[in-house]
Amino acid sequence: MGFSEDSVISALQQIFASTDPRIHVGIGDDAAVVATSPRSVVTSDMAVEGVHFNREWSSAFDIGRKISAANVADILAMGGRCEYLVAAVSLTGKEELSWIESLARGMQHEATLAGAYIVGGDITRGEQIVIAMTAIGAVLNPIARSGAQVGDSIYLSSLPGWSAAGLELLTKEISVNSIAADMALSQFSAPTLDYAIDFGAATAMVDLSDSLLVQGEQLATASGVALALEQSLFQQSPEFGELNNLAIEINADVWQWILGGGEDHVLLATGRNLPGLHIGEVVSGSGIQGIDMKKAPVSWSHFQ
Amino acid sequence: MGFSEDSVISALQQIFASTDPRIHVGIGDDAAVVATSPRSVVTSDMAVEGVHFNREWSSAFDIGRKISAANVADILAMGGRCEYLVAAVSLTGKEELSWIESLARGMQHEATLAGAYIVGGDITRGEQIVIAMTAIGAVLNPIARSGAQVGDSIYLSSLPGWSAAGLELLTKEISVNSIAADMALSQFSAPTLDYAIDFGAATAMVDLSDSLLVQGEQLATASGVALALEQSLFQQSPEFGELNNLAIEINADVWQWILGGGEDHVLLATGRNLPGLHIGEVVSGSGIQGIDMKKAPVSWSHFQ
Repeated sequence: MGFSEDSVISALQQIFASTDPRIHVGIGDDAAVVATSPRSVVTSDMAVEGVHFNREWSSAFDIGRKISAANVADILAMGGRCEYLVAAVSLTGKEELSWIESLARGMQHEATLAGAYIVGGDITRGEQIVIAMTAIGAVLNPIARSGAQVGDSIYLSSLPGWSAAGLELLTKEISVNSIAADMALSQFSAPTLDYAIDFGAATAMVDLSDSLLVQGEQLATASGVALALEQSLFQQSPEFGELNNLAIEINADVWQWILGGGEDHVLLATGRNLPGLHIGEVVSGSGIQGIDMKKAPVSWSHFQ
Repeated sequence: MGFSEDSVISALQQIFASTDPRIHVGIGDDAAVVATSPRSVVTSDMAVEGVHFNREWSSAFDIGRKISAANVADILAMGGRCEYLVAAVSLTGKEELSWIESLARGMQHEATLAGAYIVGGDITRGEQIVIAMTAIGAVLNPIARSGAQVGDSIYLSSLPGWSAAGLELLTKEISVNSIAADMALSQFSAPTLDYAIDFGAATAMVDLSDSLLVQGEQLATASGVALALEQSLFQQSPEFGELNNLAIEINADVWQWILGGGEDHVLLATGRNLPGLHIGEVVSGSGIQGIDMKKAPVSWSHFQ
């Protein structure tokens, strides 16, 4: 065993320490006591070693960032602002204290980017590393996935697919010396969330945790509309060329990455005159339209 | 595999369905949106199969109740009232859908007792069943563990030790036909929380998740005082006789159960003229005093 429970808790208290006056009681009591908004957004995500992350491919810091980011992205996708996070972690007992500290620093790093604090948690033993985080955010006007209307346009906060590209580089053990490859690997390890985009006027919004096709279908179903995508519009993203060149270089399908990849937590929004990448229109009907099936992998077929 | 992910989510949405107007967006979107108080209590607990529960000893319903109860107890221990819970669960894929539904009904049952709602969660795959829950509660005046003052008395919401007694019956495979044995097994499977007790005037409070000695020591350290317990006072609890008779019958140590057992989530509070079981006085010094070492197991020694 690389650590004692007391030494872990003491290290985490230092890493997560905050003097923000909205935290009335922080880590160390039965529960945290914090100032909350009249309307809060709450979400929870669990990451399991070997399923959601892999210690050979990702540093502890990046694993921590990624699980914080997954939670924060769900808050952003409701039109909210993340305020607090709590983390529950099961450890095997074979981890080094330094690994656990890096994990916590990664969680803290992403929380700080989001303007949030980690205010509590739980540590326990298990056969594999499992990390569960819960995020609490403030929201004035929640943006559900059910509000898209015919006549709205469809936007992305940025081009998705980078994380899927990184995963393909790792699983195929391909080494490419390019900025695009570095970007893909970095986004796979821990995505850069689109904090700067203002989708506050969106009629509906989702976070692409699974893929554009999966979450787009969910938004379309919840709103009772169809999403008519135009693949040519994706190509107007300044990032498209780089991602496409990487796909060509390693003989991969860029559309599989963009439409079928997930985990880069890009936001998909509907509305009028929104910022971001315009990729199509909301029309009457159901599901996703406009995807060229000759290029689409078989696994996409049930989304048509 | 006993279930598909869609069928699980659909079943959970039905079990956790609520029409409370404070839930603006419930299960089914990126995150839940709920009405929250200006000051919230937040806590998280993780339970791992084989460590915190065991499918041979506990029904899915009781496992669900127990993890909800562990979270709710932390909220009560801060002087709060639980409002919302979220659950993240990793499943092996070998569970039957009916087992998962019972787990969810158990969570829901305990949440309802506490006046709380389960508003979201996450389901994923793992090698073992891991359940993480996070509770959010409302609190006006938080009661930390650091407020005990010399001159306060010490109280318990009820006699602890029942859960430890149940565990001993199970691990030693002893079958006893008595109300006390049934009570012990029931409290081990899922504790009955002391919702009725009013510790609102307490100066300090903790929930006995580990044991009276462990959490008492934590409260004493946080408050900079000593807890002088009087074992004769415990014996004035109407439950003491039943628990003691069970201990005698199976040749166990009732004080090990009461002082060293945990998981029945009894509340330990300090203050003046509080309700509950009066067990001693707050005095100057440090740690726990007044425990008869001739009766105390070796494992207690570091608490003296």
